[in-house]
Amino acid sequence: MRNIKIIIEYDGTEYCGWQVQKNGMSIQQVLQKAIEDTVNHKISLTGASRTDAGVHAKGMVANFFTNSKIPCGKFPMAINSKLPDDIVVTGAEEVGENFHSRYSNKGKRYSYYILNRRIPSAIYRRYTAHVPVLLDVEKMKKAAGYFLGTHDFSAFKSSGSSIKNNIRTVKSISITKTGDIIKLEIEADGFLYNMVRIIAGTLIDVGKGKIGPDDIDGIIKSRDRNRAGKTAPPQGLYLDCVYY
Amino acid sequence: MRNIKIIIEYDGTEYCGWQVQKNGMSIQQVLQKAIEDTVNHKISLTGASRTDAGVHAKGMVANFFTNSKIPCGKFPMAINSKLPDDIVVTGAEEVGENFHSRYSNKGKRYSYYILNRRIPSAIYRRYTAHVPVLLDVEKMKKAAGYFLGTHDFSAFKSSGSSIKNNIRTVKSISITKTGDIIKLEIEADGFLYNMVRIIAGTLIDVGKGKIGPDDIDGIIKSRDRNRAGKTAPPQGLYLDCVYY
Repeated sequence: MRNIKIIIEYDGTEYCGWQVQKNGMSIQQVLQKAIEDTVNHKISLTGASRTDAGVHAKGMVANFFTNSKIPCGKFPMAINSKLPDDIVVTGAEEVGENFHSRYSNKGKRYSYYILNRRIPSAIYRRYTAHVPVLLDVEKMKKAAGYFLGTHDFSAFKSSGSSIKNNIRTVKSISITKTGDIIKLEIEADGFLYNMVRIIAGTLIDVGKGKIGPDDIDGIIKSRDRNRAGKTAPPQGLYLDCVYY
Repeated sequence: MRNIKIIIEYDGTEYCGWQVQKNGMSIQQVLQKAIEDTVNHKISLTGASRTDAGVHAKGMVANFFTNSKIPCGKFPMAINSKLPDDIVVTGAEEVGENFHSRYSNKGKRYSYYILNRRIPSAIYRRYTAHVPVLLDVEKMKKAAGYFLGTHDFSAFKSSGSSIKNNIRTVKSISITKTGDIIKLEIEADGFLYNMVRIIAGTLIDVGKGKIGPDDIDGIIKSRDRNRAGKTAPPQGLYLDCVYY
């Protein structure tokens, strides 16, 4: 059996998330069906991450085993011809039998986009979170620095996760502003449930002056979810890439 | 009667264009209804441009007469509360009774966005035209220069327009590339029907090597629509602003 790793871009607006749910259509479900129609047998599709409803991806990774003799270079176009246009396979390669998109990955990078202007946007509404109050970006940059390094991120995890080890290492984090778009980019060896969206929500509170930049250290150390900001909305979040 | 000028941003994907059509919902129709519900009387809404189905706007201008005493600063939020989220009023001001958004304007600026990579994009699909063949941007820049100035643009006009005078002045034109997005920006004192999309289609042909950069001069002079490129698809086009 060949083990095929694929890279996927998707617009999460119309889906209930990556993973199969009782209500609504999942990206995994639609993609799995398209691959099965391409290779002509049932497959099991494993994704590197379980993105929530409305979250987007530019570089999701998944893998599946197949007997098909289709050359790797032909997989993207072949699968894309069976997909709706809001899910696109952008690359494919054959990997070793031990490769597992979820357990083998060494880290991920996410971006979070905020539209920071008074009036909402018709054009960016699906792809940014709208914050109408002018945010202090310099304070947000200062606050972001506290997330760097190895910490117990329990304060930045939504309940409902069964994971016990909440220690993660943030390798890089940056805040940039271009026009009225603020971009948060964060790379870590792993992320807890909703971690990026809670960090984004907390940094928004810093930008509003509700939380001081230097309070972040204490919030992390408290391991208390109630001290961090709200979970920012899903449409601002993108899974950019998964590292192996 | 007060004459109110409004600025509108919209995502044209779901509409049959600005103007009321037999089939499908128009932006004008939806916006007019929202304004009528706000001012509590029938109005006539005049737009600066008639964008086609699928075309977007960041700075469309329209005006209407009203007896309403609502202060101008309150109009955007009041109207937006009655609009779907793909149409947003971003500003409003009271203008003189002779102001007419279509006849008073002195020029417009449009942008056209091309996604230039082999594989289509899930995220940019509604907002860019996809060109899978790698385009030669330097040739496109050289070709763009020929459009500058005052010309008879008959070769860059779709049939079906009743306008007789095809002479327009292009005041600025630029081509820039950021990542795999190529942006064409063009400002003129006016545009013929489909003019920006035909210029975009012609520049794409230049980028592909089908038309030489120095052929543009002869194509303009020929006034022959058949010598220019195809009309590029609507989803790459944005009306950026209207000048008065």
